[in-house]
Amino acid sequence: MARVKSFPRTILDAFKGRSFLSTLDFNRPELSELLDLAMQHKHGRIDPGTPLTGKAVGLVFFDPSLRTRTSMTIAIQQLGGVPVPLHVGSETWTLEFREGAVMVGESEEHIREAAPVLSSYLDAIGVRCFSRLQDYEQDKAETVLSAFERYSSVPVINLESSTQHPLQGLGDVLTIREKFGTLDQRDVVLAWVHHPRPLSMSVPNSFSLAATQYGMNLTIACPPEYGLDPEVFKQVEDSAQANGGSVRISHNLEEACKGAEVIYARSWGSLDFYGRLEQEVELRQQYRDWIVDRQLMSLASRGYLMHCLPVRRNVEVTDEVLDGPRSLVIQQSANRLHLQKTLLSLILR
Amino acid sequence: MARVKSFPRTILDAFKGRSFLSTLDFNRPELSELLDLAMQHKHGRIDPGTPLTGKAVGLVFFDPSLRTRTSMTIAIQQLGGVPVPLHVGSETWTLEFREGAVMVGESEEHIREAAPVLSSYLDAIGVRCFSRLQDYEQDKAETVLSAFERYSSVPVINLESSTQHPLQGLGDVLTIREKFGTLDQRDVVLAWVHHPRPLSMSVPNSFSLAATQYGMNLTIACPPEYGLDPEVFKQVEDSAQANGGSVRISHNLEEACKGAEVIYARSWGSLDFYGRLEQEVELRQQYRDWIVDRQLMSLASRGYLMHCLPVRRNVEVTDEVLDGPRSLVIQQSANRLHLQKTLLSLILR
Amino acid sequence: MARVKSFPRTILDAFKGRSFLSTLDFNRPELSELLDLAMQHKHGRIDPGTPLTGKAVGLVFFDPSLRTRTSMTIAIQQLGGVPVPLHVGSETWTLEFREGAVMVGESEEHIREAAPVLSSYLDAIGVRCFSRLQDYEQDKAETVLSAFERYSSVPVINLESSTQHPLQGLGDVLTIREKFGTLDQRDVVLAWVHHPRPLSMSVPNSFSLAATQYGMNLTIACPPEYGLDPEVFKQVEDSAQANGGSVRISHNLEEACKGAEVIYARSWGSLDFYGRLEQEVELRQQYRDWIVDRQLMSLASRGYLMHCLPVRRNVEVTDEVLDGPRSLVIQQSANRLHLQKTLLSLILR
Repeated sequence: MARVKSFPRTILDAFKGRSFLSTLDFNRPELSELLDLAMQHKHGRIDPGTPLTGKAVGLVFFDPSLRTRTSMTIAIQQLGGVPVPLHVGSETWTLEFREGAVMVGESEEHIREAAPVLSSYLDAIGVRCFSRLQDYEQDKAETVLSAFERYSSVPVINLESSTQHPLQGLGDVLTIREKFGTLDQRDVVLAWVHHPRPLSMSVPNSFSLAATQYGMNLTIACPPEYGLDPEVFKQVEDSAQANGGSVRISHNLEEACKGAEVIYARSWGSLDFYGRLEQEVELRQQYRDWIVDRQLMSLASRGYLMHCLPVRRNVEVTDEVLDGPRSLVIQQSANRLHLQKTLLSLILR
Repeated sequence: MARVKSFPRTILDAFKGRSFLSTLDFNRPELSELLDLAMQHKHGRIDPGTPLTGKAVGLVFFDPSLRTRTSMTIAIQQLGGVPVPLHVGSETWTLEFREGAVMVGESEEHIREAAPVLSSYLDAIGVRCFSRLQDYEQDKAETVLSAFERYSSVPVINLESSTQHPLQGLGDVLTIREKFGTLDQRDVVLAWVHHPRPLSMSVPNSFSLAATQYGMNLTIACPPEYGLDPEVFKQVEDSAQANGGSVRISHNLEEACKGAEVIYARSWGSLDFYGRLEQEVELRQQYRDWIVDRQLMSLASRGYLMHCLPVRRNVEVTDEVLDGPRSLVIQQSANRLHLQKTLLSLILR
Repeated sequence: MARVKSFPRTILDAFKGRSFLSTLDFNRPELSELLDLAMQHKHGRIDPGTPLTGKAVGLVFFDPSLRTRTSMTIAIQQLGGVPVPLHVGSETWTLEFREGAVMVGESEEHIREAAPVLSSYLDAIGVRCFSRLQDYEQDKAETVLSAFERYSSVPVINLESSTQHPLQGLGDVLTIREKFGTLDQRDVVLAWVHHPRPLSMSVPNSFSLAATQYGMNLTIACPPEYGLDPEVFKQVEDSAQANGGSVRISHNLEEACKGAEVIYARSWGSLDFYGRLEQEVELRQQYRDWIVDRQLMSLASRGYLMHCLPVRRNVEVTDEVLDGPRSLVIQQSANRLHLQKTLLSLILR
């Protein structure tokens, strides 16, 4: 059985010692090799061994987690390393991120100390910090993730930041590849669905980028007020063009899903109403019929349902579809473990 | 030294890959062999090895834990596995358990996703979810534990549910066996004691079942309003009859304890006053003299004190008795580790 | 490479199986050998191996932690052991410490059960419980730490108590030795600095004791109302005299720092105003100019900045000094890991 050390030299050089913040930081050959290895890992054709022996990986959570926490903990420890979960604010000190702050307020420790100190103990630092949904410019600035990256001397791994969830995006593409064999020209729909409250752009951004980086034909189906950030959409367009796929927007969910091979359901907030919770919630009430149900699935006769989870049953997707034979949602989550073990093996060899 | 793989075939077949929800799911020969092995493990006559290598066990806590969390974490890791503690609500998403729910409320993830996802990462899932003490029918339905069992594809281990605490019940019987050598016809009293507020039925239920499954003569001493659930009591009666022991109820604590070999102190709530906290607390004020003190212990001259802990000192049991030579409370807790290592070895070989 | 078992016999006998509550419990030769070994460990000249195989260490936190939690978790697991972090109150039961308490209040478990039960599972128990800053006599009594020590049958390790933080004090001395080679007659200043609210005496106490135990010349610079506890100061004086160093107090920060080799910045509360938060905060407003800035550092031309962290930037120390070439604050934290691995190897061989 192949061992990590026998991985192709190109991918080893591409990932070793690097941070993993966005799929945009890697080119398509690198990302393709990563998926190849992850799939081989899933099928037991690669033995990753214990390349993390003597190493420790921090898992810094500013927000809740089920899949990421569990799968990262297992990945790290099964590779021989020590996982160190840290819940900021409850278990640790509250952190300050503003440069030059005169720290007379609530925050007890600045990232300029926290990150170097953690770097002195750890061989990599995973960070989860969601969008705060108050001020879009602030969320877009990725204050927390970029401060960890700036002040850490070890690789930083994005466990979902305010605008990106690259482990999810890659795990999703891995699942599509597992199901269809190839990725080029796959017809996938990112379908905005209703949800009681606005959610972050991280998953739609990361899935749109990953799908087009792998050459798929992506349709983003959403109400008019729910487009992606124009800058991100430009990146998605560029990535589609560079990799032989396409991207288009539709404001008609049924039209968009006709003939689709994958319907990726996900809700997110309207950038036009960012930080105005009441008005945003009023707006989304109009779109309660944006739900993935049997009728919608029937329009995509060869199509599969995907969702990053957690999902609001009978609001985003009906029970019938979630529990039906075309749902890939559990497989998507399961693939995260294989992807992450592979990625950690590459970064921390 | 014997290794796990040389365990008797009968017990290996009985436990391998099975959930552990209640001692009622196993017959007496199986339970007896389990205790045999746990005692041999405690005395170092069995080397369990590392049968959990490459495996991971989740520990899903909806409620606090000291003994269970600590002893399970150690058991899993010393057997070679990865323990993954998850505190629902603070560290993870809040969960929905109602079938067919339209999820517009607070709950972010349905057990129908959470359990299969966890099953894809983990080799077994331990669950602790106490009784909510509001609605007895709901508690009795074991909504949480049974949903984990229904939707998980890996064994589920009860770390205390709303009506059962089987690891405690078995650990208690192990302690009695360690002290007395044999279990048949041991005279044990389950003694209701005062406590500032009503507690769950899980420990009285599990101890009553385990004691009678192992052929002991059980007296349940409690005020008239504090009987067990009639259905559970019927199971206890059946189990006594099937295994050569007996069960009786007494409303006179002193009479019940005369000549007892074990006084198992424990408080629980009145089913008649379930969900009516103020009235229940008023009721129990009448029974403040239901406490295990030196005088009561002197009625059981050969008798030992047991308690599952945590114990309210000088309310349930006096300092003098807890710190005296007849107290087994620490030994009871210590035995949990040996029982659990044995059980995990059997389930997850 | 030397293994733990080849450590000098004297130090093995001094530490094996002992609690680590204060540096005062050990004599200078023992403490010197400990630093020697920790430094050799840092430089890879000692291979500690996995002396904690089959062992488990609890980390009981009543208060937040970043450095201690992370470095202890890694130290324990890299030595082959199982770390068991327990956050009291959120993850576990709330604890009672008063002897003879009639437990009708909020506390659910007494330390007289909790400590022996944990001792039955664990091979050592680390405890972090800060000063409550309400009642100095209570804080000084070290209720929590001393109760763990009294009722545990395994070594107890102080992870910062209400009046001591010995792992910090020793790690600090290790850093000074690393920088200067020797410790005798080093000129160090413990500099009280401004902070928005009063903090515990644990770090100033432990650093003052450790510095003088290793023969340094210590100046404590603080406003008149911020002296150490007279009893602790007497211990510091005794320790200076016994080990060839000195201690003096200055109420003039600039004068104190002239020519210093180390300026150890740290804030703490006024014992005269203990428990009177509003007045204490009013008092400390007068001393907002007690800050370590470039000008102060220039008085100590050969001097280094130290701080135990977390530090309030631009309140205790300016950005410029913290980010400058004379700051040792990250190195101090990094050294904690090497110290703790060495200490655990010695205690739990």
